[in-house]
Amino acid sequence: MNEKVPDSHEAPRLHGVWADLQDAIARVDAEQLGREMMKLMARLFPICRSITGDGVRETLSILSGRIDLRVQEVPSGYQAFDWTVPREWNIRDAYIKNERGERVVDFRKSNLHVVNYSAPISGTMTLEELRPHLHTIPDLPGAIPYVISYYQERWGFCLSQNQLDPLPPGRYEVLIDSSLKDGHLTFADAVLPGTSPQEIMISTYVCHPSMANNELSGPVLTAFLCGLLSKVRHRYTYRFVFVPETIGSLVYLSKYGEHLRKNLHAGYVATCVGDAGPYTYKRSRRGDSAADKVAEHCLKHLGPGSTVKIVDFFPSGSDERQYCSPGFNLPVGSITRSMYGTFPEYHTSLDNLDFVSAEGMAGTLKQYLRVIQAHEINMKYLNLSPFGEPQLGKRGLYPTIGGKTSDTPTSVERLMYLLGYSDGTKDLVDIANLARKPAWEFAPEILALMDANLLGLAD
Amino acid sequence: MNEKVPDSHEAPRLHGVWADLQDAIARVDAEQLGREMMKLMARLFPICRSITGDGVRETLSILSGRIDLRVQEVPSGYQAFDWTVPREWNIRDAYIKNERGERVVDFRKSNLHVVNYSAPISGTMTLEELRPHLHTIPDLPGAIPYVISYYQERWGFCLSQNQLDPLPPGRYEVLIDSSLKDGHLTFADAVLPGTSPQEIMISTYVCHPSMANNELSGPVLTAFLCGLLSKVRHRYTYRFVFVPETIGSLVYLSKYGEHLRKNLHAGYVATCVGDAGPYTYKRSRRGDSAADKVAEHCLKHLGPGSTVKIVDFFPSGSDERQYCSPGFNLPVGSITRSMYGTFPEYHTSLDNLDFVSAEGMAGTLKQYLRVIQAHEINMKYLNLSPFGEPQLGKRGLYPTIGGKTSDTPTSVERLMYLLGYSDGTKDLVDIANLARKPAWEFAPEILALMDANLLGLAD
Amino acid sequence: MNEKVPDSHEAPRLHGVWADLQDAIARVDAEQLGREMMKLMARLFPICRSITGDGVRETLSILSGRIDLRVQEVPSGYQAFDWTVPREWNIRDAYIKNERGERVVDFRKSNLHVVNYSAPISGTMTLEELRPHLHTIPDLPGAIPYVISYYQERWGFCLSQNQLDPLPPGRYEVLIDSSLKDGHLTFADAVLPGTSPQEIMISTYVCHPSMANNELSGPVLTAFLCGLLSKVRHRYTYRFVFVPETIGSLVYLSKYGEHLRKNLHAGYVATCVGDAGPYTYKRSRRGDSAADKVAEHCLKHLGPGSTVKIVDFFPSGSDERQYCSPGFNLPVGSITRSMYGTFPEYHTSLDNLDFVSAEGMAGTLKQYLRVIQAHEINMKYLNLSPFGEPQLGKRGLYPTIGGKTSDTPTSVERLMYLLGYSDGTKDLVDIANLARKPAWEFAPEILALMDANLLGLAD
Repeated sequence: MNEKVPDSHEAPRLHGVWADLQDAIARVDAEQLGREMMKLMARLFPICRSITGDGVRETLSILSGRIDLRVQEVPSGYQAFDWTVPREWNIRDAYIKNERGERVVDFRKSNLHVVNYSAPISGTMTLEELRPHLHTIPDLPGAIPYVISYYQERWGFCLSQNQLDPLPPGRYEVLIDSSLKDGHLTFADAVLPGTSPQEIMISTYVCHPSMANNELSGPVLTAFLCGLLSKVRHRYTYRFVFVPETIGSLVYLSKYGEHLRKNLHAGYVATCVGDAGPYTYKRSRRGDSAADKVAEHCLKHLGPGSTVKIVDFFPSGSDERQYCSPGFNLPVGSITRSMYGTFPEYHTSLDNLDFVSAEGMAGTLKQYLRVIQAHEINMKYLNLSPFGEPQLGKRGLYPTIGGKTSDTPTSVERLMYLLGYSDGTKDLVDIANLARKPAWEFAPEILALMDANLLGLAD
Repeated sequence: MNEKVPDSHEAPRLHGVWADLQDAIARVDAEQLGREMMKLMARLFPICRSITGDGVRETLSILSGRIDLRVQEVPSGYQAFDWTVPREWNIRDAYIKNERGERVVDFRKSNLHVVNYSAPISGTMTLEELRPHLHTIPDLPGAIPYVISYYQERWGFCLSQNQLDPLPPGRYEVLIDSSLKDGHLTFADAVLPGTSPQEIMISTYVCHPSMANNELSGPVLTAFLCGLLSKVRHRYTYRFVFVPETIGSLVYLSKYGEHLRKNLHAGYVATCVGDAGPYTYKRSRRGDSAADKVAEHCLKHLGPGSTVKIVDFFPSGSDERQYCSPGFNLPVGSITRSMYGTFPEYHTSLDNLDFVSAEGMAGTLKQYLRVIQAHEINMKYLNLSPFGEPQLGKRGLYPTIGGKTSDTPTSVERLMYLLGYSDGTKDLVDIANLARKPAWEFAPEILALMDANLLGLAD
Repeated sequence: MNEKVPDSHEAPRLHGVWADLQDAIARVDAEQLGREMMKLMARLFPICRSITGDGVRETLSILSGRIDLRVQEVPSGYQAFDWTVPREWNIRDAYIKNERGERVVDFRKSNLHVVNYSAPISGTMTLEELRPHLHTIPDLPGAIPYVISYYQERWGFCLSQNQLDPLPPGRYEVLIDSSLKDGHLTFADAVLPGTSPQEIMISTYVCHPSMANNELSGPVLTAFLCGLLSKVRHRYTYRFVFVPETIGSLVYLSKYGEHLRKNLHAGYVATCVGDAGPYTYKRSRRGDSAADKVAEHCLKHLGPGSTVKIVDFFPSGSDERQYCSPGFNLPVGSITRSMYGTFPEYHTSLDNLDFVSAEGMAGTLKQYLRVIQAHEINMKYLNLSPFGEPQLGKRGLYPTIGGKTSDTPTSVERLMYLLGYSDGTKDLVDIANLARKPAWEFAPEILALMDANLLGLAD
C-alpha cells in the first residue's frame, strides 16, 4: 500500500557518514587534540587583537596555516545596516612611567593594560590628572580589567588594584603609541560543501586581546572542528566563521545574511569552550529550531553525573544577538562551558591560559562533533512496511526464541521504536526522545533497517 | 528592507497616556482616595437595596453626584433572554414584636432582618408558627444572615442565633410593610470614549442591602476609577456598568450584548475589593483572553512578599457568569481581594464597614489602575531597524565604554528585549514575560525608542 | 438566536442507555460474576494452546457456549502483510524419562514443560546432550518457564531449576509427540451492532498454554463483557476479538484493518486483568485519542485510595503493537492490572489460578464497564439557551431561596458546568475534567437538562 521505493544510494551514503564521524570522535582522544589545541592557543595568546587592525590579521593568518580560510576585508566607513566600520586601530607600545623612568604600567607585559581602541596620547601629568583614565577592579585586586571604547574616542589604562594602590603622587610620563586611521576590518570563513546545500554554521570571534576562555578557546576549537570535518563525508554544508564580535558579524550578515536566511539549518556561536565548567546551551531566539532540538538532545544525554544548563535566549550576549535579530531570526544558539559573564575571571587578565585546559577543550570539541553527528543522522525516516510490524525474525534482527527467556535486547527495542514511529512526521531525535535514549545509539539499527529495505528516508 | 514608516503622532500620544496614568496612580496615595471611598461607602451603607426598587435608584443617584452616569429602567415583565424582570419591591418597615409590644426584630436596626423581596405580611402568630419564616446561622451565632427569595413569593425574617435563642414561646406581632408591584428595574452606566472603539469594561452590582465588601466596595471603587479615568488621556474606550446582579447584567446584555461582542477588549467584575485579603484573579471562561493575560501579568508582578491567587473560571459566581455564558463568551474576568464565598463574614451582617478599610480600597484601586495602564501600553511594537541590532551608542542609549566596567544597566536590558522581540507577533506583555519583568517598567524605553524612530506600532 | 432544535428521540434514548449500563455495573456484584469468571478460567486452564492448533479451537468452542462467536480460520501459508501463517502445531504427549523409566519431566503434569511449537523428537541421549534443549529460571528455582519458538524449528523442554538440579548424569529417553503440518490458524470475533456504526473494540488473545493472568484473564473477561453488553441498549457498535497474539492480530487486520481504520472510535487490548495489582492504562500510539481520553479520565476517578498507572505507548507489548503500527495507527490502548513483564510470575508456571482472583476479575470488569459507560455518554452537548444562564429556578432545577442559606447543591454545580461549557467544542469528559469530577456523575443532570429542552446534542 505504500509505494515509497528506497533510494539505493541512501544506505551506503549514511554508512559512510556515520563511520567517518565515529572515527573523528575517536580521533579527539587518540591524537591528543586537546594538547594540540592548547599549543595553538598559546601561540595566539600574546597577539593584541581588536575589532580591526593587524592583530586580527595575524590571528587569521596563523589559523590559515591549519585550515583553508577565505580572508576578506571591508574598508573603514563600510555600512553594515545601522553600523559603520570605524577607523582601523593599531598599537605599538604604551606605558606609564614614574619619575624614575620605570614603566609602572607596561603594555609589553600585558596588552590588557591599554583600553582597547585608545587614541594616542603622549605627555606627563600628575596622578590626579591621570586617575580618570585608569581602570581597576577593586573586588579582584590582582586582576587587570579588559576595557573597550570602540565608538567614542578616549584613552585609558587598565591595571590591577594592587598596581595602582602603591603609586605615589607625583608626575607620570604617559604614552599610548597607537593609531586610528582609515583602514579595514578583517574577517574570514571556510565552507565545506556537503551533499546538501543546507548549512550548519559555527561562528566565533577574533577581537579580544590576551584572554583564553573568552575568546581564544572559540576560534581554536572552531579551527580544529573545521580541520576534522574537512576529512570526513558529511551531508550538510559546513560554514566556519571568524569575525570581530558584533561589528564583524554585522558585516558578515550584510554580505551573507540573505544566503543564510535561505540555507542555514542550524548554527552555533562557539565561545567560552575551554574551561572546566558544565556544558551550557543557550537557545536560539526561536527556541524550537533544529539547532535547539539537536543540541539540547545531545547535551541531555551526555551521560550520568554530567550537569547541563539549558538557558532560554536572551537578547544580550555574543554574536547570536545579531544572527537572531528579528530581521534575520536565524536558528543560531550557543554551546559553551561557563558562559560569558558567569565566571569572575571573565574579561580580566585572570582569564589566562591556566583557566583553560586540554581536557576542557577536547571535551567541548567532542560535544560539537556529537551534535554534528546527530544532525547528520537526524532525518525523518519512513517505515516501508508500516502495516503491522515487519517480521524481523526472518531477517535475523529478532530472537527466534521467546517467552520467558531473557530480556528483550536493547537493539530490538531500538528497532521497534524506529519502525513504530517512523511515519514521516517524526525525526530521529523525536523518536529518541520518546525512547529516552541518545539519538546516536540508534545508528546501527537505522543502517540495519535500511539495509533490509525496511526503512527509507521520508522527503 | 522594512518599509514601515512610524506614525509621527504615535509617540507623543503614548507619552501623554503614560504620563497621565502615572499621575492617576500617584493621586491614589496623595489625595487619600482610600478615605474618600470609605466616606462614600458609609453614606451608601444604610440603604436597603434589592434587584429592583428605590434602594437601587437612591444608590445610583448618589453615585451620579460623583460621575456622569446614564441611568436607565426597564419595566416589570421585560424579557431578558430566558428571564423576566419581576415586580418591583419596596419596603418601609418590618418587625417582630413580643407580647409587651417591644420590637425584638427590627428592620430599622438592620435591613438584613427581612428576607429580601419578602411579600407583605401583618398579623400575630405563635413562635412555632413563626419559626419556619426565621433564618439564623447557628455556626455564627452573632450574625444576621442575608437571605433572598426573588422569584418565589415568600416572607421571612433573618436574625442572629443569639436573638432567637432567648425568645419565649407566646404570641408575636409580625409586620412586613413591603410592596410587590409592577414597576421597574434600574441600572446605569458611564462610557468614556477613547481614541479606539475597543472597550475595557468594569462591571459591578448594586442590589445588596447593608453589606460592605460584598457589595458596596465594588460600586464605590468603580465610581472612583471612573472619576480618575475621566480626567486622563487614554486609548481604549472605558465602560463602567452598575447593575443589579444576574437579572441586571442579563438586562444589560439584552441591550448591549451585541455591541460588547464586537467591541469588548477586556472586562472585569469588581466585587469584594475592600478587605485585607490577597488579590485574587478569576479568569474569564476563555482563560487566555487579553483580560486574563494583562491582569495575571500585573498581579504576578505586585512585588515581593505579595501573595496572589489565580483561579480558573468556574460557572458560578457573579455577573461574569452571564458575560461568559457560551452565547456571549466575553473576555471578562474578576479582580477581587477575598473572593465571594471564601470568607465567613460573606452574606452576613458581619460584612460591615469594619470589614473593609481605606487601605484595602486604595490598594485595589491602584491595582485596577495598574491593569488599565498595562492595557494602554500593551501593544505589538515593531523594531524598525530589525536587521542586526541598531547601534544604540550613537543615540546615547548605550554606554560608550564596555568590557569589564560595570554591569549592563537594566535600562539597556529593557531596550534589548524590546528590540529583540518586537517583530509584530509579540505584545509588550509577552516581551515582559520573557524578560521576567513588569510590563510597565518598559514604558520609558518604549518611548525613547519611539522617539528615536527605532520602534513603531505593528498594526 | 440559536436555531438548533433538539431531536425528540435523543433524551429517551440516552435515558435507556444510561439505565441499562447502570444495571450492568450493578449486576457484576449482585450476580457474583467474579466467581463465574473464575470457574470459566479453571475450565480453560488445562488446555494446551498455541498460535495454531486444537488448543485454540477448543478454547473458542468453550467461549462460544457463552457468547455468539464467529469463528474463522486461515490456512498455513496465508500471507498477512509481512508475515506468513506457519504450519499448524499439535501435541499429544511429551516427557523425559530417566534410566528407570520414570517421567522426570512430564507434559501431562504441565503443558509448559514443552517449548511451545516444539518439533517432534524421540530418542535417548545423555544429560549433556539434552542440556542445550532444557530451559529453567535459576532466579525462580520453583518455576517452569514459558518458552516459544514459532518461526524457527527447534525442540526443547522447560522445567524448574529444582527439577533439573538433582538429575544425575546418564541416559534419558526423550519424547515430544507433536506434529507440524499444513493446517489452519483459528480466531473469532463477536460484533454487537449499536445505533452508530462507530465501533469500540476489545481485543484479547488465546494462544498461551496454562497461565492465568497472562493470558486467560483476558479472554474470560472479554467474554463476560460481551455477554453483559449483549443484553443492554448502547449507541456504539461493540467488537470483541479473540486471536492468537501477533500473527492472529495481523491476520485479523489483514481482513478487517480497513474497516477498523474507518470505524474504530476506541479500542482496548484486554490482558493481565485478573490479579490484585493497581489498574494500569497504556496509551495508544496517538496518545490523545478518544480511547486514551476516556480511559484515563475513568481510571483517574476510581476513587480515593486507588492508585493508577498511566504509561505512554511503547512499541513492544501485546497486540496494540499491531493495531498501532504506523500504517494503521488505530486508537487502541490497553487497560490492565499488573502489566505484562512487570510481575515475576509473568510467563512462568507461577502465573496460575492462585495468582488471579474473583475480586480482581470483577474489579476489572467493572472498570471496563465504567469506561464503556463513559464512552456512551461522552458526547458534545449544546446549551440550547446559551445567552446568559437559563433560569433554572422556574424549572425546579435551582433553589428558590438564596443568599446565606446553604451551600450550592453539587447537582446545581453540575448543571452550571454543563450549561456553561456545552458550546459544541467540548465533550462531557472535557467538562468533567474542568469540574474535576467523574463524567458519569453528570448523567442525571444531562438527562434533566435534555428533558427541559435546555441541552441537545451538537453534531
